[in-house]
Amino acid sequence: MAKNLTQKIIEAHLVSGEMVAGKEIAIRIDQTLTQDATGTMAYLQFEAMGVPQVKTELSVSYVDHNTLQSGFENADDHRFLQTVAAKHGIHFSRPGNGICHQVHLERFAKPGKTLLGSDSHTPTAGGMGSLAMGAGGLDIAVAMAGGAFYLNMPKVVKVELKGKLKPWTAAKDIILEVLRHLTVKGGVGRVIEYTGEGVASLSVPERATITNMGAELGATTSIFPSDEATRIYLEKQGRGEDFAPLAADADATYDEELIIDLNTLEPNIAQPHSPDNVVAVKELASKRIPVQQVAVGSCTNSSYVDLMRLAEVLKGRTVHPNVSLVVSPGSKQVFEMIARNGALADILAAGARLLESACGPCIGMGQAPSSGAVSVRSFNRNFEGRSGTADASVYLASVETCAAAAVLGYIADPNELGEFPAIDLPEKYLVDDRLVLAPAENPADVEVVRGPNIKPLPVNTALADVLTAPVSLKVGDNITTDHIMPAGAKVLPLRSNIPAISEHVYVRVDPQFPARAKELGKSVIIGGHNYGQGSSREHAALAPMYLGVKAVIVKSYARIHRANLINFGLLPLTFVNENDYDTIAQGDEIAIDNLTEQIKAGNEITVKNVTKGTTFTVTHDLTGRQIDIILAGGLLNYTKQQAI
Amino acid sequence: MAKNLTQKIIEAHLVSGEMVAGKEIAIRIDQTLTQDATGTMAYLQFEAMGVPQVKTELSVSYVDHNTLQSGFENADDHRFLQTVAAKHGIHFSRPGNGICHQVHLERFAKPGKTLLGSDSHTPTAGGMGSLAMGAGGLDIAVAMAGGAFYLNMPKVVKVELKGKLKPWTAAKDIILEVLRHLTVKGGVGRVIEYTGEGVASLSVPERATITNMGAELGATTSIFPSDEATRIYLEKQGRGEDFAPLAADADATYDEELIIDLNTLEPNIAQPHSPDNVVAVKELASKRIPVQQVAVGSCTNSSYVDLMRLAEVLKGRTVHPNVSLVVSPGSKQVFEMIARNGALADILAAGARLLESACGPCIGMGQAPSSGAVSVRSFNRNFEGRSGTADASVYLASVETCAAAAVLGYIADPNELGEFPAIDLPEKYLVDDRLVLAPAENPADVEVVRGPNIKPLPVNTALADVLTAPVSLKVGDNITTDHIMPAGAKVLPLRSNIPAISEHVYVRVDPQFPARAKELGKSVIIGGHNYGQGSSREHAALAPMYLGVKAVIVKSYARIHRANLINFGLLPLTFVNENDYDTIAQGDEIAIDNLTEQIKAGNEITVKNVTKGTTFTVTHDLTGRQIDIILAGGLLNYTKQQAI
Repeated sequence: MAKNLTQKIIEAHLVSGEMVAGKEIAIRIDQTLTQDATGTMAYLQFEAMGVPQVKTELSVSYVDHNTLQSGFENADDHRFLQTVAAKHGIHFSRPGNGICHQVHLERFAKPGKTLLGSDSHTPTAGGMGSLAMGAGGLDIAVAMAGGAFYLNMPKVVKVELKGKLKPWTAAKDIILEVLRHLTVKGGVGRVIEYTGEGVASLSVPERATITNMGAELGATTSIFPSDEATRIYLEKQGRGEDFAPLAADADATYDEELIIDLNTLEPNIAQPHSPDNVVAVKELASKRIPVQQVAVGSCTNSSYVDLMRLAEVLKGRTVHPNVSLVVSPGSKQVFEMIARNGALADILAAGARLLESACGPCIGMGQAPSSGAVSVRSFNRNFEGRSGTADASVYLASVETCAAAAVLGYIADPNELGEFPAIDLPEKYLVDDRLVLAPAENPADVEVVRGPNIKPLPVNTALADVLTAPVSLKVGDNITTDHIMPAGAKVLPLRSNIPAISEHVYVRVDPQFPARAKELGKSVIIGGHNYGQGSSREHAALAPMYLGVKAVIVKSYARIHRANLINFGLLPLTFVNENDYDTIAQGDEIAIDNLTEQIKAGNEITVKNVTKGTTFTVTHDLTGRQIDIILAGGLLNYTKQQAI
Repeated sequence: MAKNLTQKIIEAHLVSGEMVAGKEIAIRIDQTLTQDATGTMAYLQFEAMGVPQVKTELSVSYVDHNTLQSGFENADDHRFLQTVAAKHGIHFSRPGNGICHQVHLERFAKPGKTLLGSDSHTPTAGGMGSLAMGAGGLDIAVAMAGGAFYLNMPKVVKVELKGKLKPWTAAKDIILEVLRHLTVKGGVGRVIEYTGEGVASLSVPERATITNMGAELGATTSIFPSDEATRIYLEKQGRGEDFAPLAADADATYDEELIIDLNTLEPNIAQPHSPDNVVAVKELASKRIPVQQVAVGSCTNSSYVDLMRLAEVLKGRTVHPNVSLVVSPGSKQVFEMIARNGALADILAAGARLLESACGPCIGMGQAPSSGAVSVRSFNRNFEGRSGTADASVYLASVETCAAAAVLGYIADPNELGEFPAIDLPEKYLVDDRLVLAPAENPADVEVVRGPNIKPLPVNTALADVLTAPVSLKVGDNITTDHIMPAGAKVLPLRSNIPAISEHVYVRVDPQFPARAKELGKSVIIGGHNYGQGSSREHAALAPMYLGVKAVIVKSYARIHRANLINFGLLPLTFVNENDYDTIAQGDEIAIDNLTEQIKAGNEITVKNVTKGTTFTVTHDLTGRQIDIILAGGLLNYTKQQAI
């Protein structure tokens, strides 16, 4: 039977389950990656499993998030990560080596392999034909220990690219167009598979921009075929031997389809405060919206060509006096190449502020804009407050559109810049892996260094048979993991210290939440659609667990967050009748009797609203395995039970 | 009569007073500079004076401290600084243009001119033959308004440099040697004037390294003659017309003398936690002290040659796996030059982490080392906790010694690196002043932008005639302004918000101090020798004032801090008999009767320790003008009184 690309890779890695959309399957994981903000927890979890060496083909630990180091915490985490990697067979990418997704694409990703990463933008490697998915740190720990990764078999969406991009229109505009069509919920339970004549004209880093920001669709992942462009890219990276051709069968079928005509595509821009709030830039251009900050970088748009394009625009121009242009190259490879060929000098000459090769402002790690500022960014997320400035308006666009805003001082179609500068792809990429440390040859000699910021992992208790708890918070649709567990320069350093970081849960929504939840002892959260979209951070489940949240009842979930709730033993429930959402208020006492029996008996659970004297039905959609995990109080408890 | 260089420049600028060491004089100020952390307050004070345009020859507002931007505060301050500069005739150096002292040396400093800067390392320009002094922001505001700068006529110390530096020995080792001899108190009330045959072999940036770190001697300033090297440097900066030859008369006399033999000088290093705790590096080398961090940059050591030297050492080598090497170029000029000539690529290739051109880790603005780490820095201060990590051990050394530690992983004499790489001075420096914005042509059109972090200036009240107040804190010798008013990434953003920043006064010494001082309402602080050494931050006077501190009684003061106390109306008293220090405890009630009469009657004041039932004598050493300032409740009140 004809298969699409997703089906081919999943079939080759299938451990259990049936490849029927929506059914739980388990697949073998070839590669894992972590970044530092999620990695500390992942490695503490891996240690708790007692497996001496990772069982994957390759596991890499990157440092790209917590690089500001305003206190001892970040540097302590880096030392922990470096030593724990050396001890357990994990490669360690040193601070300064770049953003995990950019570096992994350049140096490690392979067509046809499965990659699991504790970062929601892990699908970047889909630009290379990897099946690359984000997951919680605990899932990565399990995969490193040799366990399978469980997910629901996704639907596969075919996105057919017709024609060829016009000058000043970029890969970023393609994914923004897809977001406009499908919205931030449109990818849930789906893999987005790119096909069509337009694919051939896109380089691997351009494809990676598209698969990277597929995370904003809520998709399980996005993937491109592995073709001649892939072969050339790997050759130029000195990795020709990693190439394997890979494509969907000609007569493959898909669950859904979307066609994007590149010939007519215009530069797009996502307006505040959602990545799918997309319009053509020219629709805004006549308003001459003044810009105070432009930021170029991030795992979405900081490849060699991206930075070269910026340099070409800036050459002979000056950053507008009212604009702060901040630039963070995606990797040491990119950084060194533009430092060698003069492009970096052109960027500096024009007045850019140069930042370390890391995530930086994309995760609110510095460079917060001024009050009420408009910031145009080549990044992937523009959730309210994520920039570090509560009242800033963040727009997402291509490097080309960012460059135009930087020199003109307002939001402008990059066609206003005149002739489109041609960028020559390099003959060879500059390969120098000295900042990737191989694991220790003698692991026994390695002492894992734990600074005072590395706190032991809190573990949930088994679920009680009767749940009686008040609603500690009621929220609306599209709640992001940034709402639940803020990141940024003040909170991210606490990622390995759950008691401390829990004081920040939901504070941007309700500053009293942590104190109230702790006072209530146990509680329930009520939410709307697409609950938990955004980053993969498992802290958005782990920290609420620490605060006593026992269950979440919402209209629908984002995939990774729901998986994280299960992993930490929080019951993820969904309204059968969405109108019941309206009947519940913060403070209402919720009760579920015979919980174990109800969960095991079927998909539906009866819930009492004791305060209102009403009853409603929720569905849990849990597989048998997930039920066992929830009843055990989380995946770590479950894994230990299984071992016994 | 034969004059030394200091006397010549002071005489040419003398407004009032007699040039007798220790007597108050007033001099005309030609140039001012501010940085952002002190500048917001200086410009608020300038605005309060109601003078529309600055009356100096040149005033420049730099942004180099608050560049991390973890919240809206920094960027708001930058917009305030940019607009207030445009309105009042001040040049604005945009973020990214570099560290104030390095940029000022390159582009603006002139031999024979007086420069007053709201940063203690303003003496950097002494390398050019400027008489360049640090002062509080309020003094800068007065100078911008055309007022004279008051100081005590300093003694002049002759430091004679004999011979020529050996390979691997640097200008930094000279100033470390001077610090070893004179200590952090040795420069108080003195100008350090460099002479001798060794001067000619030092370039202007090397001289600037020496005068920069003269601040750590507590000196009023340090100065080099303006000679052929000065002329060449100015020519290469495209500023040949700014050159003027300048030297002490051949038979000039000095108050004190010190001779340093460059021929025998070895690489030096200042050990934790004081810049004068200096030993030869080779004394430590045999201990093979492991290093976790190396930081190259700061206003002391980040010139073109410094960065080229680092690049030459790193070329073909790799940063040791246990070392985090962070590099911040001193200016856009330096940054762009090394980006154009390939040196930056060599630095990146070896594994350095590249930071923005700014003060960065030198002021604890990021890159805090790991817990208990050894950090070797090309900086000027290693006060305990200043790095952002309370238990880190910070060593200060030349770029050469830093480079050795970075590649070897332990503290090493740079001679261990083998052959000394020759660095060619550039034919021309790369001149591009696009990041310096000229003041507005039509000031009336400029609207000064004030974000929510710009709070109104608190003003002291006139001194009461009877002071009865408890001792809120007793501290020992060598208290720095970092102890009094910490900097770093968490506190610096509050520099334009006195109510908020006051919550951090003395917290590293006693976390309860702010609450206690506020509860007491008014209070007195007791201290030892060299009280208030370190940075020029006037917040170390202004914030205690806000907390109700009325007087400080110590054994001796650092110059700038004492001036700041006077400027904000806090009575700076000194024990006549140092043993009386021992009789006072925290909580003792101190009383001074007939305060106005006693101050005006003479230099001595009788103080009662009501709690102990004892009496002791203090001296105030205030000039008539300073008495009027104190009685008025500070310089701003006094200036307004004078205007009436």
